[in-house]
Amino acid sequence: MAQSKQWILNAHPEASPVLEGANPTFKQEKVSFPALKDGQVLLKILYLSNDPAQRCYLTKYADERRLYVPPTHPGEVVRANSLSEVVESKASHLNKGDIVRHATGWTQFTVVDAASLQPLTPLPNGASITNYLGALGLTGLTAYHGLLNVAHATKNDVVVVSGAAGATGSMAVQIAKKIVGCKKVIGIAGGPQKCAWVQQIGADVCLDYKSADWKHKLTAETPDFVNVYYDNVGGDILNTMLGRMAREGRVAACGAISEYNADTGDKGAKMTNWFDVIAMRLLIKGFIVLDFSPDQHAEATAVLRKGLEEGKLDITGGEHVVESTFDDVPKTWMKLFEGANTGKLVTKLV
Amino acid sequence: MAQSKQWILNAHPEASPVLEGANPTFKQEKVSFPALKDGQVLLKILYLSNDPAQRCYLTKYADERRLYVPPTHPGEVVRANSLSEVVESKASHLNKGDIVRHATGWTQFTVVDAASLQPLTPLPNGASITNYLGALGLTGLTAYHGLLNVAHATKNDVVVVSGAAGATGSMAVQIAKKIVGCKKVIGIAGGPQKCAWVQQIGADVCLDYKSADWKHKLTAETPDFVNVYYDNVGGDILNTMLGRMAREGRVAACGAISEYNADTGDKGAKMTNWFDVIAMRLLIKGFIVLDFSPDQHAEATAVLRKGLEEGKLDITGGEHVVESTFDDVPKTWMKLFEGANTGKLVTKLV
Repeated sequence: MAQSKQWILNAHPEASPVLEGANPTFKQEKVSFPALKDGQVLLKILYLSNDPAQRCYLTKYADERRLYVPPTHPGEVVRANSLSEVVESKASHLNKGDIVRHATGWTQFTVVDAASLQPLTPLPNGASITNYLGALGLTGLTAYHGLLNVAHATKNDVVVVSGAAGATGSMAVQIAKKIVGCKKVIGIAGGPQKCAWVQQIGADVCLDYKSADWKHKLTAETPDFVNVYYDNVGGDILNTMLGRMAREGRVAACGAISEYNADTGDKGAKMTNWFDVIAMRLLIKGFIVLDFSPDQHAEATAVLRKGLEEGKLDITGGEHVVESTFDDVPKTWMKLFEGANTGKLVTKLV
Repeated sequence: MAQSKQWILNAHPEASPVLEGANPTFKQEKVSFPALKDGQVLLKILYLSNDPAQRCYLTKYADERRLYVPPTHPGEVVRANSLSEVVESKASHLNKGDIVRHATGWTQFTVVDAASLQPLTPLPNGASITNYLGALGLTGLTAYHGLLNVAHATKNDVVVVSGAAGATGSMAVQIAKKIVGCKKVIGIAGGPQKCAWVQQIGADVCLDYKSADWKHKLTAETPDFVNVYYDNVGGDILNTMLGRMAREGRVAACGAISEYNADTGDKGAKMTNWFDVIAMRLLIKGFIVLDFSPDQHAEATAVLRKGLEEGKLDITGGEHVVESTFDDVPKTWMKLFEGANTGKLVTKLV
């Protein structure tokens, strides 16, 4: 009988999740799994995907219809995508040792019906298996769909990507520059080190929003304004960009990480440039990767896999893999909100 | 030789236009017109169209490329649409006494090349000629295109219109309810009298944003949320609406009157509900009536004219005609920003 530790949602966070104190956001439990039934597999989680969207699942909503996916309720395992190894199989198409991708949540082991699982094939060009969470995972698909199927970026466009050193942002920068071949690709990130990395992976320019003069630099770098803005952050940077869009510019509204931990108190930037939405005839479209069709996902995956094969997508810094004990899983996840990582933050369980 | 008073832009307003003091926004001048050349007409202005957009033309912009139409510069006649009577004609297709629509600006008389002018025909159903500035003017076209060609409203939609007692808003309410036949049409306006009028012209409900509980009423009236929001006001009402849109809801961003007189100081509402743009996959599209094609205008005009013929569009309160001396033209125009008028504010020169 397999046993496993699991991280459970203990209490909805009011603002930033809290790991200690009387009412922590998460708590650990132990579970046992009975013997496998036919068609089931026992998975050992190797890598956990860390995503800002997970923060949204934890929020207590007065009306759950306002959430884009069903939320996690107290007592439920914290939701997460992962790469797992099959350690025991009663499914004919999966063998012990196969690697699969699944939304297992924060657990060491789990038992699942294997019908929807497929063994992952090794990646080309020496790319790490963790690319299945990053470039070829929901992260890469999000960047691809936002740029191509929401903002309709073309090679004639000047593109700005915020959160450019983050998982989705760094993929958006690479896809815009190296796959679409956009005229100019400008990243926005926090701090000189991140900016250097964003330029290394393909951005023509990266603006450090923590520097005093970044808005002046934005103006100088965009004499003909901005055609596509890929927004991962919301807030004041979004407002600044609204004031810099070209006529008929398109904003792909992908994320608002500046807001996620601000459930109470000072939330929401002043949209002083809102009139530009009208004057410049802007299109702003919010989107969720889960809404695209299987055909669109297949097309995107093929393009991204080809990008890996041809060495167009960075495979060295694209995943920021952090080794972590299972007990430290929440702490590692919280690094997302410290702005410390570049690229996709992946937890390797040790 | 015809003589005329004209209102000239004297100084860009910093916030609200000022009519008195050392540096007023407008000043009056007198001009003389030489004898007509072939193809020209002398027009006597009868009715002036008053539009919030005129406020935008007056603003001093650091970069005029950010304006949606070329601005008015100091020394130029204040731009305005009008209905005029031909008092002298050297154009074969126009006769003395014909009524024409033209962007004459704030002037008593003007001389223009007549090539693009057509005499206006009397309207059906006893409708006043001023409908050529309102229901059949840019006002009606703006409401039509915003609802139909931007937000793609259908009879299955719950529609909310802000500034619903204003010129464009009241047309949007009528088109949504009486022409498209939308499932539910909710206006937002300021004060019980305006709200009563908005319901009289067709809204199922009108919410008074000056009342303390209007947001609760909005929630109660939209149990399945809002599919289309026609935004004339921006600011806090926009933010409230973002938090009440249904999944895949569409926002037609037509105006932001809450911002127009706030060039300095406290401008821009906090967009605390921005995340709903993403979670609900909203589409927000800024638009300008001038961008639509002649074919689209012709189609819209035909539909609106039929609406007048069939008595679907209100012709009694749709234009709020105010008699004014030429000297009082700026003062009458400023009523737009006092929130005093219902429907289209038209100045009848006396």
